[in-house]
Parts: sequence; C-alpha cells; structure tokens
Amino acid sequence: MSTTTLPISRARVIGTGLLGTSIALGLREHAVEVDLDDSSPSRLRLAEDYGAGQPVTPATPDPDLVVVATPPDVTAAVVSDAVNRFPEAVVMDVASVKNAIVQSVADTTGRFVPTHPMAGRERGGPTAARVDLFTGRPWVVCAEDSPASGIVRQLVVALGSFAVSMTPEEHDRAVAVLSHLPQVVSSSVAAELISADAAWLELAGGGVRDVTRIAGSDPELWAQILEGNHAAVADVVQTVADRLSAVA
Amino acid sequence: MSTTTLPISRARVIGTGLLGTSIALGLREHAVEVDLDDSSPSRLRLAEDYGAGQPVTPATPDPDLVVVATPPDVTAAVVSDAVNRFPEAVVMDVASVKNAIVQSVADTTGRFVPTHPMAGRERGGPTAARVDLFTGRPWVVCAEDSPASGIVRQLVVALGSFAVSMTPEEHDRAVAVLSHLPQVVSSSVAAELISADAAWLELAGGGVRDVTRIAGSDPELWAQILEGNHAAVADVVQTVADRLSAVA
Repeated sequence: MSTTTLPISRARVIGTGLLGTSIALGLREHAVEVDLDDSSPSRLRLAEDYGAGQPVTPATPDPDLVVVATPPDVTAAVVSDAVNRFPEAVVMDVASVKNAIVQSVADTTGRFVPTHPMAGRERGGPTAARVDLFTGRPWVVCAEDSPASGIVRQLVVALGSFAVSMTPEEHDRAVAVLSHLPQVVSSSVAAELISADAAWLELAGGGVRDVTRIAGSDPELWAQILEGNHAAVADVVQTVADRLSAVA
Repeated sequence: MSTTTLPISRARVIGTGLLGTSIALGLREHAVEVDLDDSSPSRLRLAEDYGAGQPVTPATPDPDLVVVATPPDVTAAVVSDAVNRFPEAVVMDVASVKNAIVQSVADTTGRFVPTHPMAGRERGGPTAARVDLFTGRPWVVCAEDSPASGIVRQLVVALGSFAVSMTPEEHDRAVAVLSHLPQVVSSSVAAELISADAAWLELAGGGVRDVTRIAGSDPELWAQILEGNHAAVADVVQTVADRLSAVA
C-alpha cells in the first residue's frame, strides 16, 4: 500500500469489527491518528492490541472523519449522532444496506457519505481484520460529487480499493442479487446437510463445499442485513424459490 | 500413482468423455491394455490422441473388464449389452445415478458392479481428462462382496481413490443432497445473474462466485442426471424452495 497523504489527520472509527478494524489499520498506514469506539470493551481492547488505534477518552479531540462501522440496525442512529456532535467532520458508514439508512438519517448537511465496501470474510471481529482486506475490491459510494465524498473517495483509493458510484436504491437491488441471494441460498443448502446422514458427508466434493462456503457467516449480522434490505431480497429469493419449485 | 498389478489384462472403455478417458489413462499406468469405444468418432480420436488406448476394431479380443462411461440415459442398455456379449467379463458403470440403472439392468450374473466416482470437473470431454482425477476422492460401489466387486475395488484403489459401500437407494438419496441439490441451486442463482444489470456484476465477490461456480457444468448431462434421480432430487429441492419462500 502506498502512503499517499490523506486530507484527514484524525479519524474516529465507531465499531471495531472486521470492517472497522481493517479500515483503522489502513488509515494508520497513511499516518492518520485513529481513535476507536465500541460498545464492547473486550472487542475494543482486541482492536487496540491489533494496532488499530487508541480507545476514545473524554479528552480525545474531535475527528475530521468518522467511520461508522457498527451493525446495520444501529448505523443510522450512530451516523445521525456523529453528524450532530462533530459539525466539522465528514461521516461515512460502511453498512451492507444503504437505502433504509439514507432515508433514516435524512442528512441535510452534505457531510454524510453512505458507502459499502464489497469486501468481507466468513469470520468477523477485530482479529479477522486485515489491512489488505479492500485491495482490488470495489467500494460503493452512494453520494454525488462534493467535498465530503471527495475525501471519502481518496480514502477508498488509499486503502487499495476503487470507488463505484451508485444510488442507494441501485446498490440495494444489486447486492440483493449478488450478495444477499447467494447468502440465503447457501444457508438453505447447508441446512439440508445438517439433517443429512453423517455417513453421506464422506461423498461431499468441491461443488457442495463451494455452494455452502459462505453459509458459515455471522447469522446475527445476516439477519440484520436481510431485514434492512427485505424488499429487494424478498423479490429475488422468491424468484429463485419459484424456479426451484418448478424444477422439483 | 503406484503401479500395483491389477487382475485385469484387457479393459474396454465405452464412452470416452471426462470419466471414461480418465479411467483409461489410469488403467494404462497399471499396464492394462485399453480398447476405446464411443459413438462419436471425433471424441474417440481425441481420447486416442490423449494416450487413453486404441479404438475397438472387429479384431479386438474380448475384455476382462468393461467400463461403461456413457451418458446416464443409455448406461443401462450399454451395460446389459456388455454383460451379454462378454460372458467372462466384469462390467462396471460410473453413472451419477444408480437405482434406476440397477433396476433396469436387473443383473442375475453377479458380474455387473454399479459404481459412481465422486470426482468431476465443470469441463467435460476427453481433453478435460486427467490421470489424477480420482486421487483422494471417494468412489461409491453399490455391490455386495463378490469376485467381480473385489476386482472393481482393486481398480478403485489403483486409481488413487477409496471405495465407499452403499446401496443404490442410499447413494441416490445422498447425491441428491450433496451433488444434485447444489447443482440446481447454483444454476438458479446463476439465472438471476444473467438477467442482472451488467454494471452490477462489478460488485460480484467471492461469495456469488463460489455459489455459482458449478452452474457452468454441462447442461445436457445434468438434465439426464436430474431425470435419472428425479424422485430424491425433487424432494430436497422442494424443501429448499419452501425454505426460501419462507425467507422471502
């Protein structure tokens, strides 16, 4: 990773899971001071031990950039709070659903930049974080050109990723097909394996392994993602269900 | 591959696709004379050029072993014919469905050994063949202990595989879950991608790639496999369809 100078000297990362901690590690490589915040003290300590930054204290200065990397169901509230508390800061989120969050935040300041890095792993949490998690991966940015979105686009490039512009609605329809549908289908096949005869599993090959690989992902996170994008997901999942019924 | 001596001096491989040609290559490494037969002259020539053996002629001596590696819809007829024509030979098939074939052949000689190597590739045909295709993979053998099944088990081990004993019914239920269900599901998700906005595909990651990898397999072969195992497959596919409908 090259160490271009970002127009950010101090960032606050709220939520030190896989994405938040990976972003924090990347920002630190670009000489950005990173303050960490998380509702879980143990997760926060793990992220600190991982070298992602230092925990927020009452004496911590205000940030230029807030990265909201909390679970999707609290993202809108945390973003709204950050926009109010830090009137000079750019606030970005990284949640897997966009339209519900954008509607809920209803930002009028132009400082909120909704984003979604298309990168992840089956494992979550700060100890799964990697500074190169975003290398070569697309990062959706759901904002018109503006000073705030320009800074976020620079961050995206600095972390080895490339920005893809989409409206929140378009993003949600795209990930319904490309991410949420495969997840639901993978889990549904895995559920059949759970009830299968253990002796049969000896026959399992690359096909079933690949189809069910992502079924090992965090179920609580996925419940929230599907809830947050239920309209678009329900549509494509029902189409596939109908197709399977027709095959059966 | 070690070159143990097999109790076979001459084998006839009928059907020189991926499996037949791979088996032929493996037999030749064990000093077995291999005669090749295929309804397609061009496929037969490719297998010969690949080093799998020589084409059958009217002067070709009778084999000790016949490997039927034709498409599943003609396997039972080809097996029955081979059992009748070569009264001293062991006859094995390698089709992905077993019960319908066993019922149809209704062998009374004890020389027919129904098998299914759990190995494959998305690509088919003789040029996709590999001598190590079976290495470390299970190979289902649907026959009681007998002189004929003993020879087949030796062949299985000689080709780097290991034998798994199952009844034809048990095999068909197991592959319905472990192989046929993932295939149908993978294809159903891939069908959604075909109708998706091309710009969205930029966002595709490892999840959707893995879930749809096997969707690239030979559609005609898969239509026959699903037809040959329709009862067991319909059952699990409908279960998954119902589960997806419930999610939607």
